[in-house]
Amino acid sequence: MTEFTHLSDSDLPKMVDVSHKVPTERTAVAISRVQLGPELARLLKETGSTKKGPVFQTAVIAGIQGAKRTSELIPMCHPLPLSSITIDISLQQEVAIIEATAKTTASTGVEMEALTAASVAALTLYDMCKSVSKSMVIESTFLLEKQGGKSGDFQHPSQKHPKV
Amino acid sequence: MTEFTHLSDSDLPKMVDVSHKVPTERTAVAISRVQLGPELARLLKETGSTKKGPVFQTAVIAGIQGAKRTSELIPMCHPLPLSSITIDISLQQEVAIIEATAKTTASTGVEMEALTAASVAALTLYDMCKSVSKSMVIESTFLLEKQGGKSGDFQHPSQKHPKV
Amino acid sequence: MTEFTHLSDSDLPKMVDVSHKVPTERTAVAISRVQLGPELARLLKETGSTKKGPVFQTAVIAGIQGAKRTSELIPMCHPLPLSSITIDISLQQEVAIIEATAKTTASTGVEMEALTAASVAALTLYDMCKSVSKSMVIESTFLLEKQGGKSGDFQHPSQKHPKV
Amino acid sequence: MTEFTHLSDSDLPKMVDVSHKVPTERTAVAISRVQLGPELARLLKETGSTKKGPVFQTAVIAGIQGAKRTSELIPMCHPLPLSSITIDISLQQEVAIIEATAKTTASTGVEMEALTAASVAALTLYDMCKSVSKSMVIESTFLLEKQGGKSGDFQHPSQKHPKV
Amino acid sequence: MTEFTHLSDSDLPKMVDVSHKVPTERTAVAISRVQLGPELARLLKETGSTKKGPVFQTAVIAGIQGAKRTSELIPMCHPLPLSSITIDISLQQEVAIIEATAKTTASTGVEMEALTAASVAALTLYDMCKSVSKSMVIESTFLLEKQGGKSGDFQHPSQKHPKV
Amino acid sequence: MTEFTHLSDSDLPKMVDVSHKVPTERTAVAISRVQLGPELARLLKETGSTKKGPVFQTAVIAGIQGAKRTSELIPMCHPLPLSSITIDISLQQEVAIIEATAKTTASTGVEMEALTAASVAALTLYDMCKSVSKSMVIESTFLLEKQGGKSGDFQHPSQKHPKV
Repeated sequence: MTEFTHLSDSDLPKMVDVSHKVPTERTAVAISRVQLGPELARLLKETGSTKKGPVFQTAVIAGIQGAKRTSELIPMCHPLPLSSITIDISLQQEVAIIEATAKTTASTGVEMEALTAASVAALTLYDMCKSVSKSMVIESTFLLEKQGGKSGDFQHPSQKHPKV
Repeated sequence: MTEFTHLSDSDLPKMVDVSHKVPTERTAVAISRVQLGPELARLLKETGSTKKGPVFQTAVIAGIQGAKRTSELIPMCHPLPLSSITIDISLQQEVAIIEATAKTTASTGVEMEALTAASVAALTLYDMCKSVSKSMVIESTFLLEKQGGKSGDFQHPSQKHPKV
Repeated sequence: MTEFTHLSDSDLPKMVDVSHKVPTERTAVAISRVQLGPELARLLKETGSTKKGPVFQTAVIAGIQGAKRTSELIPMCHPLPLSSITIDISLQQEVAIIEATAKTTASTGVEMEALTAASVAALTLYDMCKSVSKSMVIESTFLLEKQGGKSGDFQHPSQKHPKV
Repeated sequence: MTEFTHLSDSDLPKMVDVSHKVPTERTAVAISRVQLGPELARLLKETGSTKKGPVFQTAVIAGIQGAKRTSELIPMCHPLPLSSITIDISLQQEVAIIEATAKTTASTGVEMEALTAASVAALTLYDMCKSVSKSMVIESTFLLEKQGGKSGDFQHPSQKHPKV
Repeated sequence: MTEFTHLSDSDLPKMVDVSHKVPTERTAVAISRVQLGPELARLLKETGSTKKGPVFQTAVIAGIQGAKRTSELIPMCHPLPLSSITIDISLQQEVAIIEATAKTTASTGVEMEALTAASVAALTLYDMCKSVSKSMVIESTFLLEKQGGKSGDFQHPSQKHPKV
Repeated sequence: MTEFTHLSDSDLPKMVDVSHKVPTERTAVAISRVQLGPELARLLKETGSTKKGPVFQTAVIAGIQGAKRTSELIPMCHPLPLSSITIDISLQQEVAIIEATAKTTASTGVEMEALTAASVAALTLYDMCKSVSKSMVIESTFLLEKQGGKSGDFQHPSQKHPKV
């Protein structure tokens, strides 16, 4: 039956006990799509190495740093020894597509690290560009796929994501 | 002319210099909408005080804590003396609507704090419910409005938000 | 002979070197008892799900989050891969009894994580209730028991704790 | 009537809105008493500058550092611009008495900072001495007094504290 | 007479009490010079926008982020509301010269923030380049100048710094 | 051929993927030399246990704490389970020599942790003494040696370090 594993029998928030699980290799990929609007998208395209370069790099670095702090931000997450975080950002028409991949060898999954990486990168992209436009929308953030772990592999039912 | 105020003349990331600005009162409201899917939405509705209660409260607390760490997460943000953060979460059909309001008296705006609060609450909602469904989508996160500051008041052009 | 393992030969603070120890499973339980006073105790009892619920849940979440930051707070503690933290709070007459259990598989013990969890939960309980009474006293915080590790199992000599 | 100012009308945790309050000078003093037991107390007394010195200094530094992180640890606390933290530790028979004083000029009080400073110093004292004895008890932690702020001055009703 | 203001009368570390000082505008500039060696210097020069660009930008971002955490890293530092941090990096022969400028309006100076920014940028430069050479030396880090505050303006006696 | 392993094929910053590496024991030693100037050096020598003691201990504690936060400060560093950090400080004429040793059992090296420990200790030494002199210079910081890991052992080519 379906259940909330982050709630105890007395319905208090709890971390899942993973003390009897064997560490295994796990990977998760998350996507965050940021709708930039026409003016900002054009501006970034026209200024590739001078503006888009540092703007995207700041977002990538913030996302990587954010992923490492997932267990501080998300109360019931375990601290994990991340073995890799990579973040790619590409421009497709007026949308910046952020793809974050997290890996670990641990007793629990790395989905929240991938989602946090993508979200913090998206927020940073907003911050870096908000002097140009405050109307940007982070229009979808979701778990694209994960591998490893007892619950098995997962692929998001949506096919709206642009790149697999 | 439009410009990226977070890039220096040599296109390196920089904090905006606010040393000559007088602190004023500022408010910002951000929205994050989380598509739960039918099963999870029903489950939360049916278990109001026992499951939805602690799940939403964990998200609220995480969002408030996340807002206080905005300047650690978003590289070019100034540390701000937040005077208030409030987060409300409501269920509308299959969507959880997170509304985060941030206030400060400072030389710079509080938009990123509101957006970070909403995003971290949304990520925490995902984490608390992912044992039920991993297909949730944070389907939009945006700045609904802001008051105060030199750039004046702002309201998001979109009217898609459910509640103003 | 008795010694301070956190001081070097030249009496400077040091972390214990655990590089040659094999990781083993370890558990520790700590208690913190908060004397609420009659008015506050009565108020919490009478308002179970509406007031006591969110107050205790905030304390539980803060305690779990605090445990994950033990090595940042306590200078000579090693960073540990916590496999579980659980916190229970119960009301006995005018006293809130916080019981925190920490688990890890590591080369060093998890006592400080359990004590930090209990202490931060107790401080948060104080904060959440201080508009009602500032006279609360955290009247005892101690290590109830630990299992695992070279120094063997431990049980606190005191029998004053209410629940084992 | 008595109320929980950290709960919203819908009983969700919230920060108090201090945006309309004028910053004023505020002070708070907290006490934490650590029962060391006879062996450890004797050992610290006999080894003043060599052992007690660095042990107490580590606790003082950790307490000061902990106070600066109060708003990260205690979910509903505002970030405050601390103007001073001082921590004294003295040995009275078998008890180490930690007294922490916090000052700020802000729109809200500094009680939690003083209590957090005392608690983190007490936990650190435990950590520094636990290779000698694990039976230490942090036997009371409380707010001794506060000055400033709308709710006025406060002195703890208890006269059990050893030193005012 | 000369004194250590960070030690109390009983020679315990303490924060300086600034509660009676009026906030004023303050600026500090710190330099960190990193000796890269001939191979690495040449490699960076030859790969301006592709390698040197992201390497230097990562160092700049890390330095800015580090400056915001000065009071967490340096135990007796006050938390400060930074109004600006800027970091420039230039290559002169085989040396990367990092110049960090910090500004605040506060009751205490911003020297440690500038020095921390320069140091963390230098460490990050090392990390980004250590796959090419581990022999880099951070060959000097110092306070170039400060303005504002009771102790008045300061300029470093050394004239070795390359750029004023 | 020489390469920047912290840059991706598209020249974005990235963490190195260590998911397929087996954890092994690793050690690194870093040195930081702080030029104190004659007055400060004399003052510290003459006041051994009363001033130099707490000043050096504060620097040691800050360095140990800083090392534990290396992956938060240095963007592309992996979080590592440190098994030991030790820091020694000695006075040679007018120079304080800080030697930091870091150990881990991990898939990646511990050089940045040793360098961060030495740098944060040096910055703290500056902070603790800056009321006496602001002209101190951190005159060199470098990796003295490392053992373990695929790239093998390393010893710094310079023989200028005072103590091996």
